Amino acid sequence: MTAQKEAPVKITNKDIAQEFLNRYDTFLFDCDGVLWLGSHALPYTQEILNLLKQLGKQLIFVTNNSTKSRLAYTKKFASFGIDIKEEQIFTSGYASAVYVRDFLKLQPGKDKVWVFGESGIGEELKLMGYESLGGNDSRLDVPFSASESPFLVDGLDKDVNCVIAGLDTKVNYHRLAVTLQYLQKDTVHFVGTNVDSTFPQKGHTFPGAGSMIESLAFSSNRRPSYCGKPNMNMLNTIVSAFNLDKSRCCMVGDRLNTDMKFGVEGGLGGTLLVLSGIETEERALEISADYPRPKFYIDKLGDIYTMIQ
Amino acid sequence: MTAQKEAPVKITNKDIAQEFLNRYDTFLFDCDGVLWLGSHALPYTQEILNLLKQLGKQLIFVTNNSTKSRLAYTKKFASFGIDIKEEQIFTSGYASAVYVRDFLKLQPGKDKVWVFGESGIGEELKLMGYESLGGNDSRLDVPFSASESPFLVDGLDKDVNCVIAGLDTKVNYHRLAVTLQYLQKDTVHFVGTNVDSTFPQKGHTFPGAGSMIESLAFSSNRRPSYCGKPNMNMLNTIVSAFNLDKSRCCMVGDRLNTDMKFGVEGGLGGTLLVLSGIETEERALEISADYPRPKFYIDKLGDIYTMIQ
Repeated sequence: MTAQKEAPVKITNKDIAQEFLNRYDTFLFDCDGVLWLGSHALPYTQEILNLLKQLGKQLIFVTNNSTKSRLAYTKKFASFGIDIKEEQIFTSGYASAVYVRDFLKLQPGKDKVWVFGESGIGEELKLMGYESLGGNDSRLDVPFSASESPFLVDGLDKDVNCVIAGLDTKVNYHRLAVTLQYLQKDTVHFVGTNVDSTFPQKGHTFPGAGSMIESLAFSSNRRPSYCGKPNMNMLNTIVSAFNLDKSRCCMVGDRLNTDMKFGVEGGLGGTLLVLSGIETEERALEISADYPRPKFYIDKLGDIYTMIQ
Repeated sequence: MTAQKEAPVKITNKDIAQEFLNRYDTFLFDCDGVLWLGSHALPYTQEILNLLKQLGKQLIFVTNNSTKSRLAYTKKFASFGIDIKEEQIFTSGYASAVYVRDFLKLQPGKDKVWVFGESGIGEELKLMGYESLGGNDSRLDVPFSASESPFLVDGLDKDVNCVIAGLDTKVNYHRLAVTLQYLQKDTVHFVGTNVDSTFPQKGHTFPGAGSMIESLAFSSNRRPSYCGKPNMNMLNTIVSAFNLDKSRCCMVGDRLNTDMKFGVEGGLGGTLLVLSGIETEERALEISADYPRPKFYIDKLGDIYTMIQ
């Protein structure tokens, strides 16, 4: 890991904010904890994004949430009055589908994917021409029986060559048991959307994608290829899609061990930690072997807007 | 680990079988894969257990299955025509309850336990006077909502000082999310019934207790105290309950990494691996850093009965 040797700079006034904005042409944003908390936009989110657009900055949104497709994300942005195109959004579900296509080189129309996760994964696969099984199939909602599950009694689908696993709030024994059967086949690739152990919601911290993927990893005695932040698969896809000059890019996020690590290990010109999500100022300044320090940090993203005015 | 230096002896005739029986006064049996496979008794299970009783041997049954209570196990034995008392049975659910009582020293009538697992755990706790929450409570069967779950909206129960987690085929997001809330409290102990990643059933291998406990361990960033085989908590409880001479005890099981490890690390006089469960002859003879070799092995337990006749 390339350590951030200089102490992080807190953005506290107009001059620092202006200097920060001048340094970068492209901003990569994490979403939850940065732009909004669940279904509530953080203060001045719309205003700061509009300001950046007016300044000619390129905006890209990078989220480890795999439950929604990119299309569904554009609607979430629209509900906050923000006009964002599908092409500007990278979810860990989309990154997993890109990994299946560009790295594993599975063939659309031939190879199939078993999904342990919500609709955001299967929708992205479908757009690339891949048939997916599992996921939110309602036949998986019933209690598991080895002798009755339609996924076992007819045998496993021989065309399934990959499992993509992510957060699934419909997790049950049926889904875990059938997914394991596919993972027991050496020829089936094992892809995890993102390693996050938890996610914050309404003042609580709930089990994240990583906690489910690690359960499957333990039962199958296999390790997944993780696709979301901080994995470089995701960054490489973004840099290549937009032909970015990494030195003029800044990653903005609320987590040291995913967002800041993603920006630093990816060699981006800068990183901005916002304290409106999961991290504290103390953690931002701490030197740790587990995660890098950010180049800049700020209480919340919208403060840049109010400082610049 | 005390390695078994001599090559394992295969019991193949009456002389070896007789010598094996003469060596030990007490036999500790794993159940599934040794006495039965699921709901089917293995050949001559009833006969060999009756023979051992006639020879004055002490029989103890030690299972990592926490889904059934010891009382429920006596009924399973009875269904195969075998008369076994509750006191002869040690499940990982019972071992966990003993750990809560004797090691953690929680107070019955005051301290409560949150259970992630099936009825076998709560029933054993109840017999010791502990109130348990969670488990098979039907309010946990409904889809999870942070703002509607009765386990969150009224606040966590302040008297819960321990989580016991085990195999739960009713696993869902509601159970995982609420269990995590208790594990996020430093004062709440974290006990796992058993580490088994999988268990065999009807020609398949399905996710075991360990795969669920490891999910909770990952989301909470904590490690559980495991109670089932091969953990010594279980053996110490048994040795103490029966005042056993360990040198005259033999552990009989079908798994190298739990049953044989349990017998060898526990310093029992002998171990017998049966090949009617999950292991092969090749694995029994292999020298591995991960698990010990057995002292004796045999195709199936009932063969001792037919050889002796």
